[in-house]
Formats: sequence, C-alpha cells, structure tokens
Amino acid sequence: MWTVDEDALERIAIGAGILGTGGGGNPYLGKLHAQLLVAEHGPVKVVDLDDVSDDAFVVSVGGMGAPTVSVERIKQGDEELIALRALEHHVGRRCTHLVPGEIGGSNSTRPIAVAARTGLPLVDADPMGRAFPELQMCTFAIYGVSLTPAVLADPHGQIAIFETGDAVTLERYARAVTIQMGGAAGYAFPPMSGADLKRTAIAGTVTLATRVGAAVIEARTRHADPVDAVLAVAGGQRLFTGKIVDVERRLVGGFARGVLLLEGVGDAAGRTLRIDFQNENLIARSGDGEVLAVVPDLICLVDTDTAEPVTTEIVRYGMRVVVLGIPAPALLKTSQALTVIGPHAFGYADVPYVPLAGTYGEGRMVGQFSE
Amino acid sequence: MWTVDEDALERIAIGAGILGTGGGGNPYLGKLHAQLLVAEHGPVKVVDLDDVSDDAFVVSVGGMGAPTVSVERIKQGDEELIALRALEHHVGRRCTHLVPGEIGGSNSTRPIAVAARTGLPLVDADPMGRAFPELQMCTFAIYGVSLTPAVLADPHGQIAIFETGDAVTLERYARAVTIQMGGAAGYAFPPMSGADLKRTAIAGTVTLATRVGAAVIEARTRHADPVDAVLAVAGGQRLFTGKIVDVERRLVGGFARGVLLLEGVGDAAGRTLRIDFQNENLIARSGDGEVLAVVPDLICLVDTDTAEPVTTEIVRYGMRVVVLGIPAPALLKTSQALTVIGPHAFGYADVPYVPLAGTYGEGRMVGQFSE
Repeated sequence: MWTVDEDALERIAIGAGILGTGGGGNPYLGKLHAQLLVAEHGPVKVVDLDDVSDDAFVVSVGGMGAPTVSVERIKQGDEELIALRALEHHVGRRCTHLVPGEIGGSNSTRPIAVAARTGLPLVDADPMGRAFPELQMCTFAIYGVSLTPAVLADPHGQIAIFETGDAVTLERYARAVTIQMGGAAGYAFPPMSGADLKRTAIAGTVTLATRVGAAVIEARTRHADPVDAVLAVAGGQRLFTGKIVDVERRLVGGFARGVLLLEGVGDAAGRTLRIDFQNENLIARSGDGEVLAVVPDLICLVDTDTAEPVTTEIVRYGMRVVVLGIPAPALLKTSQALTVIGPHAFGYADVPYVPLAGTYGEGRMVGQFSE
Repeated sequence: MWTVDEDALERIAIGAGILGTGGGGNPYLGKLHAQLLVAEHGPVKVVDLDDVSDDAFVVSVGGMGAPTVSVERIKQGDEELIALRALEHHVGRRCTHLVPGEIGGSNSTRPIAVAARTGLPLVDADPMGRAFPELQMCTFAIYGVSLTPAVLADPHGQIAIFETGDAVTLERYARAVTIQMGGAAGYAFPPMSGADLKRTAIAGTVTLATRVGAAVIEARTRHADPVDAVLAVAGGQRLFTGKIVDVERRLVGGFARGVLLLEGVGDAAGRTLRIDFQNENLIARSGDGEVLAVVPDLICLVDTDTAEPVTTEIVRYGMRVVVLGIPAPALLKTSQALTVIGPHAFGYADVPYVPLAGTYGEGRMVGQFSE
C-alpha cells in the first residue's frame, strides 16, 4: 500500500498523459482538481490488486466525452461523486474501492479526486492500461463483467442510469446522453466484485503511470533525455521524431476524430507520418502507407524536449514531438480482446495487428538514462 | 367507474386516433395489442379523476418516438411494463393507478394494455387532451409536477432511468436514448401523487375518446355523416375538405417532421391548405398564408367518408380528407401553458395564438347527426 499526495499527482499526470495515447481527458485539469481535493482531505490510499477481497464492491469513476470538450468546458467537479452516490443508491450497496476506468489522461486522476473526498481506497489497476474511446473497450467488458447498472451525471447533478445487456449498447445509449449533457459527463460503473476485478483488470497501472512520470521529472532535473526516461520505464520505442504540420480535428458523434500529419526532423528528415485518432491515437502510418503501430498498441506523442504528453485536444501546428510506440498489455492482445480493440474494431479492415516488440511496462536502459 | 373491453377499444382507437392530431402512435397497432391483452386478462377498470385518492401513486406509460418508426418496427409489447416495473423498483413503491401520458393515438391504448396485465385501474384523464411531440408539453410539467425519475425501455428489456431538474432536459436526454433504441421506446413516468394528478390533469379524456369513436361507429352504421358525428361530440369545426397532393416527411432528431399540401374539393375547390407537422399537426395555413388553426388547438385529419383518423405515418398522396379544428382544452390555453405549447414554442415566432371558437369536448348537433 502507498498513498497519492500532491507530488505523486504531478508524476501521475505526466505518466497517465503519456499512457493516454492522446485521450482519456486533459491530464493537467484532472491533476489540478485532484490536487485540490488531496490538499483538503489528505492523501489517497492505493491498494494492490491482489489485496482486494473477493467480496469487495468496486466501482470505476471518471469522465466520458470528447477531450476537446473537456478542456473547454471545465467540469463542475462533483459529477463523478454524484454518479457514484446515485449508483450506490440504485444498487443498494456502498462502494468499498475505486478503480480507474482507464489509466490514460485525467481518468487516472478523477477517481483519486473522488477517493480523496470519500476516503475510499484506490486499486492499483485499470481495465485498459491506456485510454480507449468507447466503453466496451475495457478488459472488464471483454472478459465478461457486466458494465451496468451504469450512471452518468451532468454538471447540474442530473443523472441517467442504464441497464443494458451488453457493453456496446451501453456505449450507444450513454454516448447519446453524454452528447446531450454538453459533450462531457461524469460516470460511475461498472459495479463489480473484487473477484471479478482481480480476474479481469490490468495490475499495477497506477504505479506504472507514477513511475513514468517520476522518470520524466528526474530526467529533466538531471538534464538527461526525458523521452528516453519514458521508454526506460514504459517499454517501447521511438517511432518518429518530427513536427506537427497539419491537424484535422472534428467533433463527430461525441468523439474528437481526426488526422495528424507530421514531417520528420533529424534522422527522420524527409519522411512523413500520418496518425488517425478517435479521442485516442489509433494508427501511425508512414508516407508510403507502412503501418508503424496500430491499436491496441500505444501510440503516444510527447514533446521532444520535455516528454510532456501531447494530447488530442492540445496538439497543434508546429509542435515538435516524438511519437512513441509502446506495446499493449498482454490482456489487450488475446484474440478475444482484439475482436473489440484491434484494427478491425476501428474500421481498419485491411490492417492486421502486428504487435510492437517488447513488454508493456518493462523498459530497458535507453541512452544515458538509467532508472 | 366503467370498464374497457375489446369493443370499447374499437371506439377508443378511433376517438384517440382523431384526438391525436396526427400523432401519439399508430392507433390501429395500439388497439390490437390492447385487445389481445384485454381478451386474455379481462376488461380494465376506468376510474374518475375525482375518485383517485390524494396518496395514490400514479404513473403514465406509453410509447416515445416517431410515429413513422412505431408503425414500421412493431413493439415487442413488454416495453411499457418493463419500464413501469423498473420505475417501481427505483423509487421503491408500487404503482396504484395508470394514466395515459397523452390521450392521442396509441398512447391512449398502451396504458390499457399494461392495466390489463397488471390489474391496475386506469384514470379517466390525461395531461394533453390530444398528443404533443415533446415531453415537457404536458400539463403535469406545465403545472409543476416533476416528470422524473423517468424510465425508458427498449424491445430487449434494456432500460434507462433519468433524474433531471426540468422537463426540457428530460426531453433532450430521453429523446437521444430513444433514437439509439431504434426510434421508439416504452416509457414510464412521471411517478406522481393522486393529489398532483387531480391538480394538473385534464379530466374525462378516456371517456371523450370513447364517445368520439362510438359516435363515428354509430354514424357509419346509420349511414349518417361520421365527420359530423366527430364534431357533435368533440366540438370544433371543419377547416378544409380536400385531397392530399404532397407529403414531405423526414425523420429528424427522432421526430417525424414535414409538410402536407392539400387541394380543396367540393366547396373548397380551387383553394389549397398547408399543414406543418412534428409528429403532430402544428399549423394549418391556407394558400394565401392565413392561419386557420395553430397549436395548441387540435388539427385533425379524418377520412372524408369514414372519419377514420389519418395519422402522420399513414397519410399519403391522393387521400380524401376533412381537416377538423377542435379547440384545445382550457388547461392548454393559459399563458403558462402557451409558453410551452403555443406557436412560439414550435418556432412560429410571428404567429399569435388565436383560439378556435367552441369548447373542447362539447359538440353541437351538426347536420343530421344527433348524439
């Protein structure tokens, strides 16, 4: 067990911003909100996945919507807590543990904010190991946990509760309401047992986000290369180094969808890269159409100099970035999982999933950096 | 107290089809469904509004969506009952009385089907006296009754529960989910006290629909004019007699929206009429732009020979119809009500509401017909 304080939130925001692969909600805003609440209510206990009892009553809380909306319309702040209380009331049971619904972006820090206010412990795990745009794209749903009853709350405390037979239907119904809620909502779901959580979740991802952020901060302090630091902890490789030369970004169906174009610099001079995204980065292709990385592997943009995450809602012309490819967690690479989160599921019917080399969360020494 | 049996449903379907002013759901399908259930479970008790106790727990059930969808995708049949049971479970109280959410169209007979299955009595009242396209357009909401918690159910028994601060927000959230449910859903709301019902509902509308239908059937049998029979019971006047020469109908935002064009026949030869609708007919204007009738007054199309209701989803080129104008119930004509259901509320900013002469539900002897 360890605790998350204001300093830890600095680290988590960086690490989760990188693991968010462009999405998961703006990490800076999520961090500020959680820091405020941790300052007021004290640090949040983080418990290992193995230490959660089978009969625990675990709930994820976070934000649903398009990152482009969440950064323009700041949350009221209570959405997730209101959703959690409504879910507890609906099922007639009090939550015992919170768990991030995705470790990427602000959805790593939203549950920390709720944990600070409620005193509930946070489980060191999540069902994505990154961020994904749709609700069914989590290991809870992939491995058979019902996501409902599920609750959404708007900034006025108005709520919608869903009970659906499958996660794709929940995604459709909840997305439609999220759009009506202004494009961003707080959520609380699934209500699940500790046993189901331990069977389906990806362990240790809160710690991983913290370690990635810590490595970046340490590298900056030591004037080492913070991008190397990311790879040394998270695993993976540099796919491309370049400049953003075009951003096409629309709000479609409640998602931020679009395309990034990059021109190479340094060793990559003369080459180009195209990245498609739906909240999160989905596929990175070179100018000749070669696929360098594709979902579920993580395609992460970071600032070349600082390794600060460059997310979907802030990416803009002229930014100098390194594109990292980080291998997906093993639970995302089973055939069962690839049906839901592989290239086909995102409309890339002709793109096979060729996994990136390496292991999620297991980096090597890279360059001058040693952990 | 009286009871609704299979024969009464024949009458209600005609009367409610006419009072539906084009919408409220296809009356024929709703009738068949209710008749099946009444045949199986026995007649449904109808109780006067005055006889409902203050502490009764009253709920409306019916269908939400576009009439054009409801006639193409037949209901599974259980949607309203599932929604009712989910609402009861959510609020922790059993319903004591059902009341139609609108007397128009199949939403008059849907609660009869649920009443037959549950043994619950039906209150002889509704909050519209007609049909309206949007949820906030009911006397319950207009006169201060909260419409939530509100439940929607899809054909697979999947549900959404809403708790909103106002009826317009409920309309937005529930409409979005209805669209995702395939354009048609069963609903159960509001959960209300007998006291609130008595304070806000329009009394006697189930009886009125039955009397209108009975008059039509009797006139047909006696070879009298069934259109006169409608007016003799419902009140109102003939606005136009003609042929449908154009139907523009689209499914927009979950509603059937469009325009009907009519050419006059008989006395009206050489004249034209244009009717705009959003599920229900909203405004009837002559070729020179004169407004003959506008919401909340009822603009009802009936077959010239049989007075069979001609609803939004079945109206088509070549039909011979009489357009009736029936004055709205008094509860729809207050300034409080007109804000929500007057011409302005439907986007006719320059059209004042000039009430039709007469009284809703109080017809005169017309032509040969005497009641």
